Amino acid sequence: MGAQPLIPPIGKHVKLNEYDPGINGGNNKDAATQELKQYQTRLADLQEMLYAQGKHALLVVLQGMDTSGKDGTIKSVFESVNPIGMNIAAFKAPTSTELSHDFLWRIHQQVPAKGYIGIFNRSHYEDVLVVRVNSLVPQEIWEKRYQQINDFERLLVESGTVVLKFFLHISKEEQKERLLARLNDPQKRWKFSMGDLPVRDRWDDYMRAYEDALERCNTDYAPWHIVPANRKWYRNLVITRTIVDALEKLKLRFPEAAAGLENVVIPD
Amino acid sequence: MGAQPLIPPIGKHVKLNEYDPGINGGNNKDAATQELKQYQTRLADLQEMLYAQGKHALLVVLQGMDTSGKDGTIKSVFESVNPIGMNIAAFKAPTSTELSHDFLWRIHQQVPAKGYIGIFNRSHYEDVLVVRVNSLVPQEIWEKRYQQINDFERLLVESGTVVLKFFLHISKEEQKERLLARLNDPQKRWKFSMGDLPVRDRWDDYMRAYEDALERCNTDYAPWHIVPANRKWYRNLVITRTIVDALEKLKLRFPEAAAGLENVVIPD
Repeated sequence: MGAQPLIPPIGKHVKLNEYDPGINGGNNKDAATQELKQYQTRLADLQEMLYAQGKHALLVVLQGMDTSGKDGTIKSVFESVNPIGMNIAAFKAPTSTELSHDFLWRIHQQVPAKGYIGIFNRSHYEDVLVVRVNSLVPQEIWEKRYQQINDFERLLVESGTVVLKFFLHISKEEQKERLLARLNDPQKRWKFSMGDLPVRDRWDDYMRAYEDALERCNTDYAPWHIVPANRKWYRNLVITRTIVDALEKLKLRFPEAAAGLENVVIPD
Repeated sequence: MGAQPLIPPIGKHVKLNEYDPGINGGNNKDAATQELKQYQTRLADLQEMLYAQGKHALLVVLQGMDTSGKDGTIKSVFESVNPIGMNIAAFKAPTSTELSHDFLWRIHQQVPAKGYIGIFNRSHYEDVLVVRVNSLVPQEIWEKRYQQINDFERLLVESGTVVLKFFLHISKEEQKERLLARLNDPQKRWKFSMGDLPVRDRWDDYMRAYEDALERCNTDYAPWHIVPANRKWYRNLVITRTIVDALEKLKLRFPEAAAGLENVVIPD
């Protein structure tokens, strides 16, 4: 296996078994943890400017199999960020009201306003993942969704939102260990759900569905990142660094003070 | 001037001065009023089936200059329809929260659920009309909106919504008469707004903006209808007939009763 890109080549078929979920990029845990801290601090600064300026938004989409670390990522990456500037949306199975609209209706309502960081814990991609694997709608419906997603994400980007999508890639063996850890730890047992097992049973079908989403919705304006996620510390570093790099490109700055402010006298 | 189509030819430039706002299609007012009643009754029946079946939605978009009859159309066309199955949304100048999202964010929230008729009194088209005429955003922003609107409307149609867009076409002279009528009638004076006059001043600019919207967002899946609207009775007939015809194509029917219902005994 050669060097695997973080962003798969656009327009090319994605084979997930060519992406090793266990690599650490040559880092070691201690050095990576130090580096993560620096990025976290920088991310907190960038978020403040994003908020003050109110010109851009950031949408972070997190997808991955059960136990792949979506919740843990949110906790670790955004630890230093002021929660007032964040909007975290977790998408569960849709309600009957949501199902009576197009699949992007509930998603669109949760996109971040300018100045905000929005985080999707699962997302509109479930509508081409679990929905496809379990045939919840006919293929003629879900087939159209790849283009509909690309159109929707283009609207967001053209309206000032940076869209970063992360697939937290773990191996099937790693999932087994994490599920066992949940079962065996009384503090974690609440996280275990019997519903996770039938999903694990369809692992290969999910990988095919992910490969299609990673190929067909991988655009220059809203790229996918395949994050090696067996090692949590490396996963956190990769995601935080990617977000910081993307925000740096916006050349964010605090707004100029209004003219004449230097002459303001605050009366006694 | 030859026969003017209700739906302008798709992909062709629209010249509004080739569309006579004063025609009556050879109808006379009394006969048209009788015909309208029949269509209204049929529309009420179709709406009941739409609601009972819960498979499709209908979105009616109404656009037109001030006094072109948007409010009057809603009142006349949907007179017989059960209001429980309708969702009427009037779009005014956006709030600061709405402005901090993409222009379709507030629109998407108001689209009708399956089973419902949604009516937009003004719409996302204002974002390429008043916004363009008054340069509220740079051209590079509003230029992208035509494609964004087409993508959005395609999503709705592919998700089971029938989208019908009506431009209520009145002449500048007709508007003058209607504005004067508002001024001179104490019962109608509240409808007159000084803000209408600067808009009337830019009539030709608005017509150019409408022509572009009518050309660039006229699709086979969500067509525009240019409704001759100087005569209210003809306008009402054309719109009601168009809606009824579109709903007839859906082959709506009441859902089948559940099996075994014929054996149900209601206990004393």
